[in-house]
Amino acid sequence: MDAKNLLKGHIAKVTQLTDAEFDHCFAQFKLRQFQKGQAVVTAGDMADEEYFVVSGCLKTFFINEDMKMFILQFAMPTWWASDYHALYERTRATINVDSVTDAVVLSITNDDREKLCRDFHNLEYFFRWRTNRGYVASQKRLLSFMNNNVKFRYEEFLKLYPDVYNIVPKNLIAAYLGVSRETLSRLYNT
Amino acid sequence: MDAKNLLKGHIAKVTQLTDAEFDHCFAQFKLRQFQKGQAVVTAGDMADEEYFVVSGCLKTFFINEDMKMFILQFAMPTWWASDYHALYERTRATINVDSVTDAVVLSITNDDREKLCRDFHNLEYFFRWRTNRGYVASQKRLLSFMNNNVKFRYEEFLKLYPDVYNIVPKNLIAAYLGVSRETLSRLYNT
Repeated sequence: MDAKNLLKGHIAKVTQLTDAEFDHCFAQFKLRQFQKGQAVVTAGDMADEEYFVVSGCLKTFFINEDMKMFILQFAMPTWWASDYHALYERTRATINVDSVTDAVVLSITNDDREKLCRDFHNLEYFFRWRTNRGYVASQKRLLSFMNNNVKFRYEEFLKLYPDVYNIVPKNLIAAYLGVSRETLSRLYNT
Repeated sequence: MDAKNLLKGHIAKVTQLTDAEFDHCFAQFKLRQFQKGQAVVTAGDMADEEYFVVSGCLKTFFINEDMKMFILQFAMPTWWASDYHALYERTRATINVDSVTDAVVLSITNDDREKLCRDFHNLEYFFRWRTNRGYVASQKRLLSFMNNNVKFRYEEFLKLYPDVYNIVPKNLIAAYLGVSRETLSRLYNT
C-alpha cells in the first residue's frame, strides 16, 4: 500500500476528514527513506519531527553512561515514533531513534502538526486519541516491568508483537526486555 | 483556592476558554470528597470517570496475584487520575485508585469529557496537551525503572515530587519504587 493511503486509512479508523482536508494535511508530510541502522533522531541534537512508519521498523532507545542500550519502543507500519519529550518541550533529544530495517516513513514537524490540529478539529481529536493509546500502552509496559519476570515479559512480547519478533534481531529484543542477550539465550535457546 | 478556580486556572495555563465556555464545562464536573483510604476506582468494577485532584492525594495502584502492591502514580492537586485503559476501552478496571489522604476531587465521566471535547476545540487541545505530558512522564518513568537502581530512583523521586514525599507514608513510596519497605529503610534509615 502506498504511503498516502496507509496514513489516510489509519486516520479514517479514528476520525473523518474530507478528501480535500486529508490532502491538505498530507501535503505537510515528507516521504523519507532510511537504510538499516541509519539514525533518525540522535541524542543531543534538536528534534522537531515525528515519524509515521510506512514500511520497515524503527526503534527508540536510550544509551546510558555505561554504554548500555535500553529500547523504549519498536515502531512498525502505522506506528509513530519520536523523542516526544524533546518535541513537546522544544529541547534537544535525550533518546535516539534509528532504523532497525530499511524503512520508509512520513515525517511531520512539530509546528506543522500543531498548525494542522488548530485548523482541523477532527485531526486534533485524532492526535489526542493516538496519544491516549500511547499513554495506556506505556503504563501497561511499566506495570509489566515492575510486576513480571523476564520469562513472563518475553512471552507477553511474543503474544503482543509477533510481527516485531519476526523481524527484529534477538539482541534488540533482549534490550527491550531489559536483560542481556545471554540471559535471553539461556531462557529460550534462541 | 476553591475547586472551580483551581480547574479554571489549570486549563487557562494551556488554552483559552471564555467564562461562559468554562462555566458550561465546569457544570459537567461533580465535586466529591473521599476519606483517607477510601476506594475511588476498584479493579473489577466498571470505571467511567476521571478525577481532577483539588486537595489531598490519590494513588493509582495494582495488586498482583501474590497480593503485592505496585503504585503507578500519586496524584496531587491539579493532577488527574483514573484507570485510563478501562476508561478509553470502556472495560472493567484492572487497576485501583484510592485516597491516600482525605481528598476533594472533581470527577467527570468519559462521555461528558468526550462531548465537551467535541463542542469546544480548545478543550480538545487541552486534553491532548495533558495526555502528551502524561505520555512523556510515563516514558521517563519506564526508562528510569529500566536504567537506574533504587538509590537513584529514590533521590529522583525526592527531587521531582517533594510535596508527595512530605505527605505520603514511606511504605507507599517503597511500593512506587518497586522495593520493599525494609529495603528502603536499609538504604535511608527512613
